[in-house]
Amino acid sequence: MSRPVPFVHPVIVRYLEVDQQGVVFNMWYLAYLDDALTAFLSAGGLRYRDMLESGYDVQVVHTELDWHGPLGYGDPAEVQVGVAHIGRTSFKLRFDVLASGRRVLNASTVYVAMRTDGSGKCEIPPTLLCALGPVT
Amino acid sequence: MSRPVPFVHPVIVRYLEVDQQGVVFNMWYLAYLDDALTAFLSAGGLRYRDMLESGYDVQVVHTELDWHGPLGYGDPAEVQVGVAHIGRTSFKLRFDVLASGRRVLNASTVYVAMRTDGSGKCEIPPTLLCALGPVT
Amino acid sequence: MSRPVPFVHPVIVRYLEVDQQGVVFNMWYLAYLDDALTAFLSAGGLRYRDMLESGYDVQVVHTELDWHGPLGYGDPAEVQVGVAHIGRTSFKLRFDVLASGRRVLNASTVYVAMRTDGSGKCEIPPTLLCALGPVT
Amino acid sequence: MSRPVPFVHPVIVRYLEVDQQGVVFNMWYLAYLDDALTAFLSAGGLRYRDMLESGYDVQVVHTELDWHGPLGYGDPAEVQVGVAHIGRTSFKLRFDVLASGRRVLNASTVYVAMRTDGSGKCEIPPTLLCALGPVT
Repeated sequence: MSRPVPFVHPVIVRYLEVDQQGVVFNMWYLAYLDDALTAFLSAGGLRYRDMLESGYDVQVVHTELDWHGPLGYGDPAEVQVGVAHIGRTSFKLRFDVLASGRRVLNASTVYVAMRTDGSGKCEIPPTLLCALGPVT
Repeated sequence: MSRPVPFVHPVIVRYLEVDQQGVVFNMWYLAYLDDALTAFLSAGGLRYRDMLESGYDVQVVHTELDWHGPLGYGDPAEVQVGVAHIGRTSFKLRFDVLASGRRVLNASTVYVAMRTDGSGKCEIPPTLLCALGPVT
Repeated sequence: MSRPVPFVHPVIVRYLEVDQQGVVFNMWYLAYLDDALTAFLSAGGLRYRDMLESGYDVQVVHTELDWHGPLGYGDPAEVQVGVAHIGRTSFKLRFDVLASGRRVLNASTVYVAMRTDGSGKCEIPPTLLCALGPVT
Repeated sequence: MSRPVPFVHPVIVRYLEVDQQGVVFNMWYLAYLDDALTAFLSAGGLRYRDMLESGYDVQVVHTELDWHGPLGYGDPAEVQVGVAHIGRTSFKLRFDVLASGRRVLNASTVYVAMRTDGSGKCEIPPTLLCALGPVT
């Protein structure tokens, strides 16, 4: 896998994501993290769409977010993604949002592997394990 | 059907819908119209969820929106809904968003009746026809 | 203050908030919590808009969310709001999302009081303290 | 100006934009058009942020959208942008969303030039006129 460590995904702030105080509304950070997860797995060889089509999905069961500063419209920013923990049916990612080197947010999220047939959680499938790579 | 004419559905502006110019971003009006459609059909006896479960859905194929003024956070507002046209497989609704009597937006939207099994558009089913009521 | 304990705010799931797995996408829960905060303060006598106009705002600096089950389109749901902690410049709320008694999410969020003039965080103003009420 | 004709801006469908029918919910197309406007002006030499900072903004007063097909998660897509009309205080853009050559949506939007100081609409400022380029 040629994915760099740490993996970095750009954040493009949409005009509509900025509220009347001139900063990105908190909710949209979960969209940025979801975008970053998708890009992280894709760079690890697993397109999210292919995972869904092969009958697997991941579901967020826990997330913690700490904001250290705001993000404004047009601010160049990025998310760094790392693997904090890998279990049998779940894994934990670590996210850092930076804007020109300034720390904006750090977060960690626990995902559970699921089957898309409704049968619930399952062991992390090999393709997903492979795309996650080692804990970093 | 005891639905009043015109049918009126309240709009509660969410803080996150207001952009840094202090007005609701244009995109969210389509959410308001979708909320109003759902409430309109429900007041006509057809819950959207029940329509989906009975194998039917509606899809927007055309919409036109004219803005006459802004909507700010906390502004009390409402959508008036009317039926502009009913065809064989499609129908057209008319929407007026008002804030304390002030005209904010008027719009019209054409919906096509669809089967949820992927077989495409179909005649407007009787339950939906009934929930739409007469052209007003 | 006549606000009931616990304070309960209804959640109306919008059609657009449900993803292709048929459940509310995680991001929207932060919108529900923000709606609930606003309603909670309003029931405590402080309209969010009035707080902004008097020169104060609150900003989320930390949030933790645990999902226990999904929320689907049309599911009747509600958020219970409690006050977990009140400090000098910050306070912490506790949120529980329930759907027909079933536990969907619990969360806690730390807010910092801010001046809207850009001068940064400040002591919690008396009107906000009053609207928060006691720790419960 | 080295901007190609037609100007093309990529659309990256976010997972959260896809509803339970498996297609992008209609509202998000207005986000795509806003993203495309921003990119179009930027490629014409005017960053949206700079326009705001110089005291000007544009506001959508009319939009018409026609959907010809759906967009699913992971579908590669793009928006083509053209200038349909330029008036004294307003201009009209034309948008075509394509997915691998398949027509998804066509739309046109009328924008009015505004001052950000609240004094209302104004003549299109020279920097904006220049960034729009000729009617195509």
